[in-house]
Amino acid sequence: MSESAERLESFRHFREKMDEAIHAAGNLTVNRFFALDSRAYESGALDTKTKELLGLVASMVLRCDDCITYHVIRCREEGVTDEEFFEAFAVGLVVGGSIVIPHLRRAVARLEELSPS
Amino acid sequence: MSESAERLESFRHFREKMDEAIHAAGNLTVNRFFALDSRAYESGALDTKTKELLGLVASMVLRCDDCITYHVIRCREEGVTDEEFFEAFAVGLVVGGSIVIPHLRRAVARLEELSPS
Amino acid sequence: MSESAERLESFRHFREKMDEAIHAAGNLTVNRFFALDSRAYESGALDTKTKELLGLVASMVLRCDDCITYHVIRCREEGVTDEEFFEAFAVGLVVGGSIVIPHLRRAVARLEELSPS
Amino acid sequence: MSESAERLESFRHFREKMDEAIHAAGNLTVNRFFALDSRAYESGALDTKTKELLGLVASMVLRCDDCITYHVIRCREEGVTDEEFFEAFAVGLVVGGSIVIPHLRRAVARLEELSPS
Amino acid sequence: MSESAERLESFRHFREKMDEAIHAAGNLTVNRFFALDSRAYESGALDTKTKELLGLVASMVLRCDDCITYHVIRCREEGVTDEEFFEAFAVGLVVGGSIVIPHLRRAVARLEELSPS
Amino acid sequence: MSESAERLESFRHFREKMDEAIHAAGNLTVNRFFALDSRAYESGALDTKTKELLGLVASMVLRCDDCITYHVIRCREEGVTDEEFFEAFAVGLVVGGSIVIPHLRRAVARLEELSPS
Repeated sequence: MSESAERLESFRHFREKMDEAIHAAGNLTVNRFFALDSRAYESGALDTKTKELLGLVASMVLRCDDCITYHVIRCREEGVTDEEFFEAFAVGLVVGGSIVIPHLRRAVARLEELSPS
Repeated sequence: MSESAERLESFRHFREKMDEAIHAAGNLTVNRFFALDSRAYESGALDTKTKELLGLVASMVLRCDDCITYHVIRCREEGVTDEEFFEAFAVGLVVGGSIVIPHLRRAVARLEELSPS
Repeated sequence: MSESAERLESFRHFREKMDEAIHAAGNLTVNRFFALDSRAYESGALDTKTKELLGLVASMVLRCDDCITYHVIRCREEGVTDEEFFEAFAVGLVVGGSIVIPHLRRAVARLEELSPS
Repeated sequence: MSESAERLESFRHFREKMDEAIHAAGNLTVNRFFALDSRAYESGALDTKTKELLGLVASMVLRCDDCITYHVIRCREEGVTDEEFFEAFAVGLVVGGSIVIPHLRRAVARLEELSPS
Repeated sequence: MSESAERLESFRHFREKMDEAIHAAGNLTVNRFFALDSRAYESGALDTKTKELLGLVASMVLRCDDCITYHVIRCREEGVTDEEFFEAFAVGLVVGGSIVIPHLRRAVARLEELSPS
Repeated sequence: MSESAERLESFRHFREKMDEAIHAAGNLTVNRFFALDSRAYESGALDTKTKELLGLVASMVLRCDDCITYHVIRCREEGVTDEEFFEAFAVGLVVGGSIVIPHLRRAVARLEELSPS
């Protein structure tokens, strides 16, 4: 397994393990919030691809690397192309400013890890 | 003119007047930024409607009322339906948390002003 | 009715009216979020007074005036004293910095409106 | 007194009145914070003008209108020219993104109120 | 020493070393700020446990991992139970939104490191 | 090469590599934003040293470590002294609050790496 594949795998593993620990703690408000978080991206009047793009740009302007990684993966699964990614990045960059740039660099690194040439 | 129509009109007027003052000040970086800001929402691989929704949700999670008002108006012009608006609001609310609620209330008030029954 | 009482009344009225409009829109994710938002402050291992103080300080550092007004009212209802309010404000101010000061001023103004001498 | 002069006067009055109420509450941490807040802008290795510009740009990217108004007034008192103001605004705009624009508009409005032609 | 114990030890070491370097630099405003930061959590009308919970939730909604780690350790020292931690996390999660989740995962990981079974 | 020199070198390398990938993607809005980002710090009515200090403090209050590292390096190149650095840090700390402290610690660590005794 390449270094970048390992990194994504390790991210997924920590995420999964902690989500189990959080769920097991049994706080109803927290657990319902996690359910809502999944629900928000389900296809409706807007399709899942659009909603995942909304989640990606929201994560960029709030500068949350883990959230960006998650939505980059999900957007790719929904068929977002490189050109579409960069147009969404452009909105996030203009709205959020240069402070977004370090996160953009890491988003592009994640994107390259998902689609090695 | 109703009170709400006046409010939107006054918002548009202040916006326009200050944008002129800013442009007239002649700072090249600032003026180019304003040009980029328009450019980011132009139709490309993603259409303008999707980009305006991205701008709307980014504005919600960053909690900027003026930006929300602007993108609510633009989204309506691009044909976003009430159901689509609320699905985008749902993403913004779940990503950004209850701190977004006061801005959601004002977004819905603006939406009602745009489409009186 | 005094000017400050009117202001609080108007705040409550707008809040209530928009919450009804949001509820009526029928978006399940949004409506469930509102239910969760109430649930988070219910008495449990921590009592409601402590949770409302948590909500107040969170609102201060995130600089949301409407949220601060709401939690100031709720904290007062839960019996928070002026001295306790200012100790919570002190934590919010030190964590969030001078950028919190304008919101602190408005929080204190709301507090005075609630308990006129 | 013109409308804009009244607005600035009313801002100063509320500020002063609430600062007195906060001081009178006697919370030592809060009161010491206010003292530190003044101290940070005193001339040292960097002069007050530079420090007020730092405070102005910090306020812009954190999007705090009252803080911006305060630092615009103080910068003007320290002799900051229109050209210097706009170069500082340009840094704030590029760092903080389009979300800063509504605050930039209000900053420019305040600046015009301070120096009517 | 286990990996997680080493991580906490390394965090404490860096923290201590840099705080010494900062103190040694001799900037009076910075040094007084550090003193205020300790003072804000001292027992008063509200006890230290409540104030540390306020600091924890403020750190969560502002999404600062180091601050969260610090307050998780301090809250544990003050006797905060797992159930109380999760109720405080629930407030932070609902106020701050899903963007808080990655920090919640790390907070829970820190909590597990502090109380291994 | 020392560990800290390696860290800065690795930071510069990742930065450069990703900036090339971003540039190569050919999104005009993104590429123009990067050009604007350089332009904002060029000497004008305010000199580059002052503008880099503005960028540094803006990065501190927005709590972006990569941005802080970048501006610490640039400020040092422009001749900012340790005393001036700490006065700028003091403004950032007071405006942004204790949440800035972890970033201040890392900023001071970077500063030490740049000027080893």
